[in-house]
Formats: sequence, C-alpha cells, structure tokens
Amino acid sequence: MQRIDYPPLIQELIRQLRRMPGIGPRSAERIALWIVQKKEARPNEIADAISKTVSGIRSCVRCGFFSEADQCAICADQGRDSSSLCVVEQPTDILSLERTGAFRGLYHALGGRLSPLDHVGPEDLRIDALLRRVQEEGLHEVIFALSADVEGEATLSYLGDLLVREGVVITRLAQGLPAGSGLETADELTLARAFSGRTVFQR
Amino acid sequence: MQRIDYPPLIQELIRQLRRMPGIGPRSAERIALWIVQKKEARPNEIADAISKTVSGIRSCVRCGFFSEADQCAICADQGRDSSSLCVVEQPTDILSLERTGAFRGLYHALGGRLSPLDHVGPEDLRIDALLRRVQEEGLHEVIFALSADVEGEATLSYLGDLLVREGVVITRLAQGLPAGSGLETADELTLARAFSGRTVFQR
Repeated sequence: MQRIDYPPLIQELIRQLRRMPGIGPRSAERIALWIVQKKEARPNEIADAISKTVSGIRSCVRCGFFSEADQCAICADQGRDSSSLCVVEQPTDILSLERTGAFRGLYHALGGRLSPLDHVGPEDLRIDALLRRVQEEGLHEVIFALSADVEGEATLSYLGDLLVREGVVITRLAQGLPAGSGLETADELTLARAFSGRTVFQR
Repeated sequence: MQRIDYPPLIQELIRQLRRMPGIGPRSAERIALWIVQKKEARPNEIADAISKTVSGIRSCVRCGFFSEADQCAICADQGRDSSSLCVVEQPTDILSLERTGAFRGLYHALGGRLSPLDHVGPEDLRIDALLRRVQEEGLHEVIFALSADVEGEATLSYLGDLLVREGVVITRLAQGLPAGSGLETADELTLARAFSGRTVFQR
C-alpha cells in the first residue's frame, strides 16, 4: 500500500507558500487547503496580483522608491520641496518617513548600507547617483536617515566625507529616547546620546 | 502635496495576500515587499503553483478526496481493503487518518455535517453517493469518523438510521482521553465517555 499524501500539485503549492517570509509548514498547509476548498477564495486573483506586481513594479530611476513608471509618485510631485534630500537605506524606509508627515522634500534610497562582512562596498550602493544629484539638483540640505547602528554610522561617515566639499548642509536624524518610553528601558548608549543631543526647552 | 503610499499594484497585492487565512496586515506587507525586493524570491513560481492547483485539483468522483485525476490515489490503489469504508466530514480528515496508518480501507468524505443553524441539510452532503456505495460495493464495515460534538453526533445518528437496514456493520471512533493527557485536564463529558467506553486490559 502506498503512502498517501496530498496530490503533487498541492504539495508543490505548500512548498511554494512556505518560501514566503513568516509562513511555516502549518500556515502553508492551511492556506493551500483554503485555496483548494473555499469557493469564495478566488485564489487566481492572488496569483494575478503576484504576477502583475513582479512585472509592473520597478525602482524609480531617480530616488529608488517603488514605482509603476520611470519616476515614482514622490519625484513626479511638483509640490514637494526640491531643495531637501533625505538619504535612506531601503525604499521601504521612504514610506516609513512619509507616514510621519514630517518631511516634504525628496528622497534617495541607497539600496543598503556599507557592510564589509556582507561584502557590501560603496560600489554596491547608489552612491554615484547620490553624488550626481547633490551636484546637479541645487540642493540646500541633505538629511541622512540611516540606521543608528555600527554599519549605519560607517555609511554616514563615508558619505559625509564625500559630500562635505559639495557645499550643502549635511544633517542626520536625532538619536534619543523613543517616544513613550521611560529612562528605565533605555540602554546606556541611547541614554548617552539623548543626553548629549539634549535640546532647549520651549513652551 | 499628495499622500504617498505604495504604488497601486503593491497595494492590491497586499489586499490580496491579506485574504489568505492567518495573514494579517503586517504579514501581508512583509510578504509583498519580499516579493518586490528579493531577487531570489522567484514569486512567479508561487503564482504558478496557485493557478495550477486551482485548475488541476478536483474532488475524487468516488470518495471526495483531493485528486488530479477522476479517481484519487487511495481509490485507485488496488492494495487497499475494499470491504471497509470510513466516513469523514472533510477531505482533509482523510489525510489526518492516513497519517495515523491505522486504517487500510477506503474513504467517503461527506463534504460537511448536518447543521441546521448553518442551513446544511442532508441534500447538501454526499449522502446519496454514500448510500449507493454501501449498496453496490459489497462493504463489510462502515466506520464513522465524525466530530465528537453535537453536529457530528446528529449526523452520525441520521446516517446510522439510514444505513442500519443495509446489512453492514456500523462502527464509530472511540471517545476517551486524548493520548498523553491526564484526568485532571479532561472535561466531565470526555471522562464519562472514556469511562463508559472502557476496554479490557491486555498484556
């Protein structure tokens, strides 16, 4: 008597679903059975959405954000402040900043940060394109919004040296206590940076 | 200045992924970004697997299990005991029983159980097909492996009345303590059924 399992098509579907981040074997099986069993599932729409996204989404040629056209919605927006450029590591960081509503300028996604251990050097990031934008777009300020860790600091240091002769104001995000958290949960380094970066109290 | 979000294709992908069971907004966004950003993701293979499963998987005409052909691998297997039929609610229950290795006969999936509150009556289940199999396939035993709850009991009672004149042995799964669990975690009903269903100790 043979060992019975799902038909090969379902087994392959489970294998494919398991490759998605955060999807374990139980979730993959559950989703696969939902696809097979539920009439209201319309799973072809999911397959379509995946295919269309794969073929339809590219990187904005200017800033690197996700886009369906050559230029993304941010770069194409005439209403934005084109004198400020915010440099981030990943295109997803752009959306995080947009959601704060704190910035109205343009962005530049490097595509990562310098990380010798992962064999990521300056040539792997969109640094030439950044330098060109700084030289050609008449910027007033370049704001670095990179991770507050060793690799983010190294990347900032490298890019800061590179841009300092270009005559733009170079700034970086403040480091300090996360909103809503108390001193007792802050590590020493965060507390030290929050202290040294203290600001004048204003009413 | 317009409110920036992901491009429409990615927003639609997130909406589609969220429809899958167990996938919340954060997971859907994470998977969508993995699809967009990772070169090694090969997301088209996932889309393919979904489409192929949707078009290639049907119900076995005989037992209702998942199949790529008219008959499933179990019904097509000549080595199985064709005198025993195990009646389950869902095709997925078949796989659960197969994995125990305790049964070598054939199956019949009803496609659900009687549930007046959900408007599921006898005509919504594969009961005519079951009756025909009992009459035509020369079965010796029909084993009911239905849920041990009110609706499962009602379904068993209905089908038992129906089959009792067909001259087959009708059995049902034992109810009792789950393997590995102690008396202190068993509810009263489980304990009462384990007690009344007690078996002779054998060494």
